[in-house]
Amino acid sequence: MLTLSLIGIGCGDPEQLTRAAIQAINEADLVLIPRKGTAKSDLADLRRTICAEVLASDKAVIAEFDLPVRDGGEADYRKGVDDWHDAVAATWSQTIARHRQGDGKVALLIWGDPSLYDSSLRIARRLDPLPNIEVVPGITSIQALCAAHALPLNDIGEPFLVTTGRRLRDGGWPQGVDTVVVMLDGGTAFQSLDPAGLHIWWGAYLGMPDQIIMSGVLAEVGPRIVASRQEARERHGWIMDSYILKRRR
Amino acid sequence: MLTLSLIGIGCGDPEQLTRAAIQAINEADLVLIPRKGTAKSDLADLRRTICAEVLASDKAVIAEFDLPVRDGGEADYRKGVDDWHDAVAATWSQTIARHRQGDGKVALLIWGDPSLYDSSLRIARRLDPLPNIEVVPGITSIQALCAAHALPLNDIGEPFLVTTGRRLRDGGWPQGVDTVVVMLDGGTAFQSLDPAGLHIWWGAYLGMPDQIIMSGVLAEVGPRIVASRQEARERHGWIMDSYILKRRR
Repeated sequence: MLTLSLIGIGCGDPEQLTRAAIQAINEADLVLIPRKGTAKSDLADLRRTICAEVLASDKAVIAEFDLPVRDGGEADYRKGVDDWHDAVAATWSQTIARHRQGDGKVALLIWGDPSLYDSSLRIARRLDPLPNIEVVPGITSIQALCAAHALPLNDIGEPFLVTTGRRLRDGGWPQGVDTVVVMLDGGTAFQSLDPAGLHIWWGAYLGMPDQIIMSGVLAEVGPRIVASRQEARERHGWIMDSYILKRRR
Repeated sequence: MLTLSLIGIGCGDPEQLTRAAIQAINEADLVLIPRKGTAKSDLADLRRTICAEVLASDKAVIAEFDLPVRDGGEADYRKGVDDWHDAVAATWSQTIARHRQGDGKVALLIWGDPSLYDSSLRIARRLDPLPNIEVVPGITSIQALCAAHALPLNDIGEPFLVTTGRRLRDGGWPQGVDTVVVMLDGGTAFQSLDPAGLHIWWGAYLGMPDQIIMSGVLAEVGPRIVASRQEARERHGWIMDSYILKRRR
């Protein structure tokens, strides 16, 4: 039986790798490295760098493959995602079949942690035959963001919400919490909020050499983040950022 | 100037250590290991084990100290915590002063991640003189829980709330979310909920050799978790557990 190991590799800094992740990579017979197109080639580069750094033998075959592109034109968001997951699962299956005959250990290096805003677990469950699935946790961008700002995420005994840019833009400030973590924000959804009483801790390219962080009163620092984000996005060709908002009453 | 490095060590398995954590431990001149009394001596043991395993030289002095006990009798919860943080900061200062004369690097090994339901950052800011503070992220029990269950934490594009047992018991199911992570639950607060439509993924001693996990429909598996938790707590003398609840509509 095939074992598929989904290995969290942290969010950009190879020093975030855990000992368990390094061991799991070294146990693999086959390491799959998805390519997402030139815009995000830095991400595939990190996976190659990690393999080159931590593989102690040449036991593992490293197989790169092109990820299918999601149909952004599909009106039903859920159906678009669903179809895309099917297509990705088919690509994984084909790439695995090209190298393995029904057994062994296949590793996928996952940005961040496989359990957080990542679809690999859902895609893995679509594989036929279903492999044995292992998960190795990795440091997430939320953790790298808090560490960079030396910020306690929750207030004492208080809850926090993790949500998406889309949700924040569409739904406003969520009920019942004073701390909100915003992920997957393709824009700057914090601009849709009344900034009164809000503080922000923002970071882009977290854990990477180009890491940028900014924090302060949202009304003051928000516009500077918008400008900085725009400039960085143009320079790199892509951006990955996240932020924490806190309401002070 | 003194640098205080708050180093996340994961939640029980030394294999969860990151390369950055191992490096930070090895850069320390002084490693502080708090003792919390016999009931949680396993936790101090893990810190000792990690130091013994990863320290590549005998440069660092390892200093154990007794943590002050929080006054559970204080009617004002916030004031009780506040006073306790002052007392802990005083103990850190004394222990540091005994070994260092105003400079060097002091390491504190933090269970999980220093940013998540941990007070070390708040306590560090009370030190006088204020040290330079560094944070190294570590794998949390939430991540170990998801990995053990091979569970995606969020649903696609959906938010989730991280809260405490006390909040869940007092406030019921939170508004606006279908996924709730419950931490710091001294009891089994999920018993206060109407279990209709709820699923649970529970784990105790996550990442440790005695790890227990259970999952399923809350109405069915909830009573078995209560019994298993009680039995494990009696056997070990202490328990640390957390769980994820999802509402299926």
